[in-house]
Amino acid sequence: MARPTPLSGFPEWLPAGRIVEQHVLDTLRRTFELNGFAGIETRAVEPLSELLRKGETSKEVYVLRRLQASDGDAAALDDGTLGLHFDLTVPFARYVLENAGQLSFPFRRYQIQKVWRGERPQDGRFREFYQADIDVVGAGELPYHVEVELPLVMAEALGALPIPPVRILVNNRKVAEGFYRGIGLDDVDAVLRSIDKLDKIGPGGVASLLVAEIGASADQAAACLALAGITGDDARVAEDVVRLAKEHGARSDLLDVGLAELVALLEAAAELAPGVLVADLRIARGLDYYTGSVYETVLVGHESLGSICSGGRYDELAADGANTYPGVGLSIGVSRLVSRLLSAGLVRATRPVPSAVVVAVTSEEGRIDSERVAAALRARGVPVEVAPSAAKFGKTDPFRRPSRGAVRLVPGDRRTNPAGRNCRGGDRTRGQGHPHR
Amino acid sequence: MARPTPLSGFPEWLPAGRIVEQHVLDTLRRTFELNGFAGIETRAVEPLSELLRKGETSKEVYVLRRLQASDGDAAALDDGTLGLHFDLTVPFARYVLENAGQLSFPFRRYQIQKVWRGERPQDGRFREFYQADIDVVGAGELPYHVEVELPLVMAEALGALPIPPVRILVNNRKVAEGFYRGIGLDDVDAVLRSIDKLDKIGPGGVASLLVAEIGASADQAAACLALAGITGDDARVAEDVVRLAKEHGARSDLLDVGLAELVALLEAAAELAPGVLVADLRIARGLDYYTGSVYETVLVGHESLGSICSGGRYDELAADGANTYPGVGLSIGVSRLVSRLLSAGLVRATRPVPSAVVVAVTSEEGRIDSERVAAALRARGVPVEVAPSAAKFGKTDPFRRPSRGAVRLVPGDRRTNPAGRNCRGGDRTRGQGHPHR
Repeated sequence: MARPTPLSGFPEWLPAGRIVEQHVLDTLRRTFELNGFAGIETRAVEPLSELLRKGETSKEVYVLRRLQASDGDAAALDDGTLGLHFDLTVPFARYVLENAGQLSFPFRRYQIQKVWRGERPQDGRFREFYQADIDVVGAGELPYHVEVELPLVMAEALGALPIPPVRILVNNRKVAEGFYRGIGLDDVDAVLRSIDKLDKIGPGGVASLLVAEIGASADQAAACLALAGITGDDARVAEDVVRLAKEHGARSDLLDVGLAELVALLEAAAELAPGVLVADLRIARGLDYYTGSVYETVLVGHESLGSICSGGRYDELAADGANTYPGVGLSIGVSRLVSRLLSAGLVRATRPVPSAVVVAVTSEEGRIDSERVAAALRARGVPVEVAPSAAKFGKTDPFRRPSRGAVRLVPGDRRTNPAGRNCRGGDRTRGQGHPHR
Repeated sequence: MARPTPLSGFPEWLPAGRIVEQHVLDTLRRTFELNGFAGIETRAVEPLSELLRKGETSKEVYVLRRLQASDGDAAALDDGTLGLHFDLTVPFARYVLENAGQLSFPFRRYQIQKVWRGERPQDGRFREFYQADIDVVGAGELPYHVEVELPLVMAEALGALPIPPVRILVNNRKVAEGFYRGIGLDDVDAVLRSIDKLDKIGPGGVASLLVAEIGASADQAAACLALAGITGDDARVAEDVVRLAKEHGARSDLLDVGLAELVALLEAAAELAPGVLVADLRIARGLDYYTGSVYETVLVGHESLGSICSGGRYDELAADGANTYPGVGLSIGVSRLVSRLLSAGLVRATRPVPSAVVVAVTSEEGRIDSERVAAALRARGVPVEVAPSAAKFGKTDPFRRPSRGAVRLVPGDRRTNPAGRNCRGGDRTRGQGHPHR
């Protein structure tokens, strides 16, 4: 049989790399549980009709077909067709509706699962990757303080990981919408979509777009760009916005509400997670379902990776006859983060196996004595294996090199840990930190 | 939006049920790591050509297609087509070949992931479920003691779960093959396939099958059935087989080797896991790639569930130019087990959320003081949430009812915990404890 080769976009790790990934997943889960989030898992598939409710994602769905399905089955793309979920938000919304009668609201849940996107191979994006989501969802209403709490939980979770420091960038849709309407631009979604392109096409490009597409004046375009340039971590951000609004003759109650919310978030963050949260008014997030705070997160020194944790406030996650369900949620693109940790040699496991001890076997007849020793150690919580073959004392298996204590992570040595060593499938994604939220 | 309904065969748990499942998964993982198994995960997909190498499983594969794929793409079932894995053995074999140069052999790995089978909905089987596998794989050779070790690791893992006692039933292919050949039946696979049907068609049916299909005499058929009737947990099993062989004039070196191996396994088990392992010579396991020990496991009192943990010794998991890779592996059908635990009310979580403490908020202005208290508790490892809305002391949220300490599992009360309460998708599987190994 020929040696198989990796599939582009489907990352797999060698055992030492998997230890790093598992540590990241465990740490996130622990922080989420410490904060009272209940873990759920949803099935990997959803009806295609659910997955396509937002048309924009249709091109990225993997559709399933039973190999032995009848022809009618295979051809139809009706409601009976199943597709793999491409994020954890669509399945969560369905789970909330399906089980609303048996959940307690506000419902705090975390969910750590793989998602799939049918990207074209040549895009070099991940086609299978882990996301780690937290959401708090209310039935009918959800107070603002949840918008303060959730980025702080993520700050705590990311701060517990063996990664460089993160900066969580926050904005508030009410600020943006209030300001745009205040200066006379009513197609708020179109302005947000243009501002979202700042990184790609620069301020000149955005200004041209605003003029060409929604008929903004040069002054209106300049005001939008000036707003997007405002950043800071305290109440002065609000003062800057108020001054800018005054210059452009803008008045808006919504703007005032948004600024008050933003300042409340910055003030809580200054106490509970100092130095982590920054207001950055260029954060637009293209999706139109956000209605309050929006968040993106960069890894300091690895800004090229894009946002590793994004989300926001939405007023309607789902709705049934009885209720609408507003929520606040954030999602970490775990695989992309782990891929970067491994490929950049930022962290490594002290050994590729959990065993802290190998019990020697001096002759095969005495193997059961070694098993007894191993069992006694395991009963005390020590990971142990018994030597696979008998050998004289001092002859340790050169492949295993056990070190004492639990396997742990240490800073990687970039010189001796070249890119890709623990890493199959590479670090070649883009954009997937903006996980459709 | 209409309330969604569950998809048949895709089980999902409410938060309290998920706590049980997560506890089972954590306990298995901990035992595997204590025994020095390295964790890996493989991608969910394999090339269809790999999945179909054993033709018998072809009907159960889910094939993937990008929704926006070109027509040529969609129609072709060539090597480029991907399917969801239906077990963890096929992906593991591919992983070993792909990474052989970077693994240490014997390679001890555990793997806990979901698998998918494109069962017809009306079959009432699970179409998505967790498997938990351990395998030890050698490069070129693998000593017999691994066949002793692996069922004992599984006995330890299953013994640590909140489930009724298990009985691991073992047989040895060398015993069966040596005996059959010794009495003049050379189509060993056909005899095994017939014996494998004992539960379904009874001894009379098996005897007829042996006579009709492979031309066995009535005496040969009776000998096969008599062998299948032998059971026991010590060396007397071997004595019974030797006596039976003598009665039928059978002599075979292979039989002697197999019996010596079986007795060695029983004797080690008697010391290291007393009362758990039983030799049961009717255990045939239909698959032809087993070459030594074979294992099945029943939950005492729930034998109708079928085998919850199966596997065996295979001499060729995979092969490349340099080596063949023999192995010993066992696989637990986790979802089916958890489904039974929940639906039969055998166990339940003490509460549906991880939080041990809810910190009260007396007024929204004072919320940050409550957050400070919560942060201090979390720093000491206590899961905490802060009350979602301000209320006077003594007014606890009636939905959450936190109890002190960590959330834990307790025996369920069958009267108050009717089937299905934590359980969506039900307990309607059959045969999936024989997870294609």
